[in-house]
Amino acid sequence: MKQIFDEEFINTKGSGLYDFTDKTKHFVKKNKLINGILNINILHTSASLIVQENADPDVLYDLNNFFKKLVPMNNNLYKHTAEGKDDMPAHIKSALTNSHLTLSVKDNKITLGTWQGLYLFEHRLEDQTRKITYHFIGN
Amino acid sequence: MKQIFDEEFINTKGSGLYDFTDKTKHFVKKNKLINGILNINILHTSASLIVQENADPDVLYDLNNFFKKLVPMNNNLYKHTAEGKDDMPAHIKSALTNSHLTLSVKDNKITLGTWQGLYLFEHRLEDQTRKITYHFIGN
Amino acid sequence: MKQIFDEEFINTKGSGLYDFTDKTKHFVKKNKLINGILNINILHTSASLIVQENADPDVLYDLNNFFKKLVPMNNNLYKHTAEGKDDMPAHIKSALTNSHLTLSVKDNKITLGTWQGLYLFEHRLEDQTRKITYHFIGN
Repeated sequence: MKQIFDEEFINTKGSGLYDFTDKTKHFVKKNKLINGILNINILHTSASLIVQENADPDVLYDLNNFFKKLVPMNNNLYKHTAEGKDDMPAHIKSALTNSHLTLSVKDNKITLGTWQGLYLFEHRLEDQTRKITYHFIGN
Repeated sequence: MKQIFDEEFINTKGSGLYDFTDKTKHFVKKNKLINGILNINILHTSASLIVQENADPDVLYDLNNFFKKLVPMNNNLYKHTAEGKDDMPAHIKSALTNSHLTLSVKDNKITLGTWQGLYLFEHRLEDQTRKITYHFIGN
Repeated sequence: MKQIFDEEFINTKGSGLYDFTDKTKHFVKKNKLINGILNINILHTSASLIVQENADPDVLYDLNNFFKKLVPMNNNLYKHTAEGKDDMPAHIKSALTNSHLTLSVKDNKITLGTWQGLYLFEHRLEDQTRKITYHFIGN
């Protein structure tokens, strides 16, 4: 059993979903990971990680739009407003999704369905550089 | 340390929660898994996995009902409508819950509370066959 | 590779977020865990676990307040009412967040961002004693 740690930076330009499936597949290939657990963490609480449909970009639009309506950017609703109208909604949206994904790797491939992709879900409006960490345990 | 991979198919008949705790306990028993991590993935983005109360069926009804109201099946709300009125809501409900569960196995038993069960949460209306994967790492 | 199991009890006094980051760091330190996966489970379905901002207490207030409004404690909305007006909403809030957290440990430290903390999210109104389990696999 071995363990591999790495990190990746993802640049975001406003709220929405950013596909990092290929980056992750590359991490698995270049390290010749055969079988094991791949744990991915995002080190922020105003962006999150989800597995979502990778076929129709409208799905990603609708998903972001749903969350925008569910968690309004309205300072009157929150006490924590010092960091901007998008900050508290971003924390809530993160709580409603995930701070990490725990994936299985089998035969040098991530276990994903045909229509599944890995996404960083950015909840803030301004440009950001987000850090995610990879941690593999297996062989 | 060993790793065991397997898969399971679960038939669903409309939206709601489908208990697969016993199937999972059977997987642990038959493979004589003692201690380790059991990662379970669903290979779809219109159904999801959750841990939920296993005592009163009304809880499962109320839970599904809450999600139905929270994420309406109304095509006017979404751009992605080609796959039916229930498809985009299904993707959103999946994002609000989980695509995988990472469980601990100790002394040949899954670490669960007395009232906790494992459920596949089906979000689509028509009959489906859903594929989940088991991946154990431990001894 | 070794595995370590432990459990912890957290007392809660009403709905809200309870920081257990220090307890978890202590678990990692005292067991001299170097690199590995730390899986944390809560054995209840009316409280949950999340990673959230640890800087401004207003964030925790707003987060709890958002969930209270999203999932009203109104018995007319639910069939499962026998355990009190806060019970069914608690199950729903648990489904919207997490029953477990899967963290990476590297160089004897939990992989967390500067502003990330580990929280037990209590959804019930009365005092509770909640049980969480630690399971480490690594070296």
